[in-house]
Amino acid sequence: MPSPAGPNVWIALIHYPVVNKNGEVVASAVTNLDIHDLARTARTYGVQGYFVVTPLSDQQILAQRIIDHWTAGPGGYRHPIRKEALSLVKIVDDVEAAVAAVKEDTGHTPKIIVTGARPKEGAIEYEEFRQSMGNGVPCLLLFGTAWGLAPSLMEASQNALAPIKGTGDYNHLPVRSAVAIILDRLLGDRPKPLVSVG
Amino acid sequence: MPSPAGPNVWIALIHYPVVNKNGEVVASAVTNLDIHDLARTARTYGVQGYFVVTPLSDQQILAQRIIDHWTAGPGGYRHPIRKEALSLVKIVDDVEAAVAAVKEDTGHTPKIIVTGARPKEGAIEYEEFRQSMGNGVPCLLLFGTAWGLAPSLMEASQNALAPIKGTGDYNHLPVRSAVAIILDRLLGDRPKPLVSVG
Repeated sequence: MPSPAGPNVWIALIHYPVVNKNGEVVASAVTNLDIHDLARTARTYGVQGYFVVTPLSDQQILAQRIIDHWTAGPGGYRHPIRKEALSLVKIVDDVEAAVAAVKEDTGHTPKIIVTGARPKEGAIEYEEFRQSMGNGVPCLLLFGTAWGLAPSLMEASQNALAPIKGTGDYNHLPVRSAVAIILDRLLGDRPKPLVSVG
Repeated sequence: MPSPAGPNVWIALIHYPVVNKNGEVVASAVTNLDIHDLARTARTYGVQGYFVVTPLSDQQILAQRIIDHWTAGPGGYRHPIRKEALSLVKIVDDVEAAVAAVKEDTGHTPKIIVTGARPKEGAIEYEEFRQSMGNGVPCLLLFGTAWGLAPSLMEASQNALAPIKGTGDYNHLPVRSAVAIILDRLLGDRPKPLVSVG
């Protein structure tokens, strides 16, 4: 049910395949806080859905219990605001399943956009991507846990967002912060139209 | 030791006085994740220091143990990147103590800027505030835990940032996301100078 308000954006938080500190491909653990924080941020920016991506069945069960508590269980009664956010969350095995879900919902195969702290050749700057988003094509943004998306995911996509740069070389944002900043850059309100003079 | 790279910005995460769901003034609990997430985001954006504000001695002891683990303890050896971020954190009793610390560091009393999800009359938009930050005056941004900064803090400051708006009426961002978005809006890199045409 895409909202008429904005571009059709979905996000996916990848727990596998991601890399660890040594660059090895691993599966990371689902965390309660990532589910909540990303759901609330996604809801704020009109994101259509938030996929928690893990193939591990015990992790899927844990994530589903958290979601159920806040959507169908006691958490939802006491905190309807959380329910509204957590209702966006869906657990899937892999990126292919997320793509299939978006296609089922919209009739269109989404464009997959990868994100990460390491620069990738041909990466798109935010303002450029923001302006290209109004064409109605659904977009699925992939975010990595642990030390980031595995090379197999980074290489499979033709579309990468440029890394977020702060004021120096330190590029170790928590994924919760990175999602917030990227959604704000792509979907946040802008007081007035802006044009480049550079 | 202000970095020469950018404006002199400090942040403070307020655990007291804040309001709960019913608008009552309370003290919130310090959390490990808020310490880490805000420190990493602050470090990314060249923030000069991050004050954890709580007058409760048991909470101060807990927070100090976490910080020590990552700066002087085993965490610092294993994860120098975390050490670099956590080194920014200082625990203080109240906003006055944070102001005094900035003054001691810079010789100037910082301008206090409050933030929150509820609109405040005369609040400053981000682009306007960003442009005013180059004048060298230190700025101390206050962020509330729980349901936000207590009225006493909101009313004491002449400077409030406008609430972050997403694409609708939902304004329940986690404080971790709000800090990330605000620092990016105020301090993040911009590919080219932008001017308004609206």
